Amino acid sequence: MQRALSVRSKNKDSHKDPPKHRLQMLNSLRGVERAELSRRLAKLIKTENHAIGAYESAGRERLSIASQLSDWGESTNDDSLSDISDKIGVLLSEIGEQEDLFAQNLEDYRSILKQIRNTEQSVQPSRDNKNKIADEIQKLKYKEPTSPKLVTLEQELVRAEAQNLVAEAQLTNITRQKVKEAYDLHFAATIERAEKQIILAKHGRRLLNYLDDTPVVPGDVRQPFAHGNDARQVLADAEHELQMWQPSLEAVEVNSTGLGSNLMPSEEVARGTSSVADTAGDIASPQSETTSPTHHKPAEGTHLEQATAS
Amino acid sequence: MQRALSVRSKNKDSHKDPPKHRLQMLNSLRGVERAELSRRLAKLIKTENHAIGAYESAGRERLSIASQLSDWGESTNDDSLSDISDKIGVLLSEIGEQEDLFAQNLEDYRSILKQIRNTEQSVQPSRDNKNKIADEIQKLKYKEPTSPKLVTLEQELVRAEAQNLVAEAQLTNITRQKVKEAYDLHFAATIERAEKQIILAKHGRRLLNYLDDTPVVPGDVRQPFAHGNDARQVLADAEHELQMWQPSLEAVEVNSTGLGSNLMPSEEVARGTSSVADTAGDIASPQSETTSPTHHKPAEGTHLEQATAS
Repeated sequence: MQRALSVRSKNKDSHKDPPKHRLQMLNSLRGVERAELSRRLAKLIKTENHAIGAYESAGRERLSIASQLSDWGESTNDDSLSDISDKIGVLLSEIGEQEDLFAQNLEDYRSILKQIRNTEQSVQPSRDNKNKIADEIQKLKYKEPTSPKLVTLEQELVRAEAQNLVAEAQLTNITRQKVKEAYDLHFAATIERAEKQIILAKHGRRLLNYLDDTPVVPGDVRQPFAHGNDARQVLADAEHELQMWQPSLEAVEVNSTGLGSNLMPSEEVARGTSSVADTAGDIASPQSETTSPTHHKPAEGTHLEQATAS
Repeated sequence: MQRALSVRSKNKDSHKDPPKHRLQMLNSLRGVERAELSRRLAKLIKTENHAIGAYESAGRERLSIASQLSDWGESTNDDSLSDISDKIGVLLSEIGEQEDLFAQNLEDYRSILKQIRNTEQSVQPSRDNKNKIADEIQKLKYKEPTSPKLVTLEQELVRAEAQNLVAEAQLTNITRQKVKEAYDLHFAATIERAEKQIILAKHGRRLLNYLDDTPVVPGDVRQPFAHGNDARQVLADAEHELQMWQPSLEAVEVNSTGLGSNLMPSEEVARGTSSVADTAGDIASPQSETTSPTHHKPAEGTHLEQATAS
């Protein structure tokens, strides 16, 4: 019932096998299963790349439209329209820059998702190895129940299980930490773009009030534009508000500050589980790959600055 | 000086000829000049189509990402992650729907710009005709200063000038009215998208707090997810706030309510300039082409509704 109320794709039940068939699946479809663990997230990361491309494109087109609007306004030989269209253009450019900044922030969010995917990829061999040994034991028990090799294999299995236990703990630790971090960033970026674009759009609406659209009769001459200073002031106000902007977000709680570079709680490692944790040597920490997800502050406000500096 | 402080393209001075060369330009480059009047706006309308396409694409990708996130969360076999990722997915879907709604609103804004372009196109022949007759008179005065045809041409010129006077008045009336209308709509749509996405993103951040990212040691079992009801409540709150959303905009003043379907001030026409206005028969009113620029209310909130109905 709850399933229909989610965005989960409908054919999911066919993917989720009851645990009792798990080993059998691995025997026959090991290659498929290996790809499976990181496949879904890898696809999501790819789709996110397309979304980011769309925002970059929207930002680029907006900048181009801003400049075209200004040029068109000038070509009308109507000084009111010329001035207002140029200043609307400045605000639209800034709105376009905000789309681009949003795309850059999404890129940071995307690189956090990659850290989860990397850990998924690095955990897979540990799962496979454990299952392969268990599988060999099963076969040998059937073919040669008294083989001395069984003892060696049982010892290997214990070690493989210990290693996998670490790998799975690392996976859940990194996954939960990074999901929170990634969507914290994603939602913060959404709010930042929204708040800044609201500032720009509201001042844009103020500008429109300086364009007198009272109809004229043939032969009437339009009054010269009398609101040049007012219009400039609108841009100055927009620039000021944009510079004053600060994020005001409810914090997302983080409980994973004790997560060490080995992806284990750092105190616990010190308190004696280090022997288990040490078996995790081959599970590379993917943290080093990250660029720090700080918000970019690129060309922000430059259109307004240029337009209001005098 | 002020030019450098705008978004106007730098080579504009080469476009803007001093008025004294105007006639000469028309003689030699009439075809180019004819295209000129509506060319700039036609290009802007085309670029805006690309921008709209980018937003549609961003919305589509966001919907796809939302569903992929939910599926991935389920595949982790972690019930906390499964529940939270599905609900983040619902909010992301709604954010995607808002991108799409924004694109539809931009489409309406774009169709208002088309009305200006159509008037520009329909005014061009009137300008051309007036210039052509003036041009013929010039030539004839040089070649046959006593030609009786000159009298006829002078009469034609007076009629052409009267017609053009109407056309130019119509053009300035429709242009100023529609620029205000178009950017009123554009900025209102920007604010609507922003305010709604802020609602969704803020609730998204609340959801993240229900995902416990305290690291575990190998062998630890994660606690069952205890915040199912809280997470559902977040979606219900988001849905409620989205439904309660109302635009709260400072109005853009409109002075062109007296603009008749002949693009003249309707009272003025009645008061006696009707003979002049009537010559405007061949300047088609482009207003009939418009779809009314009301805000679309499409599938908005459906993801949340589905997810919170129980």
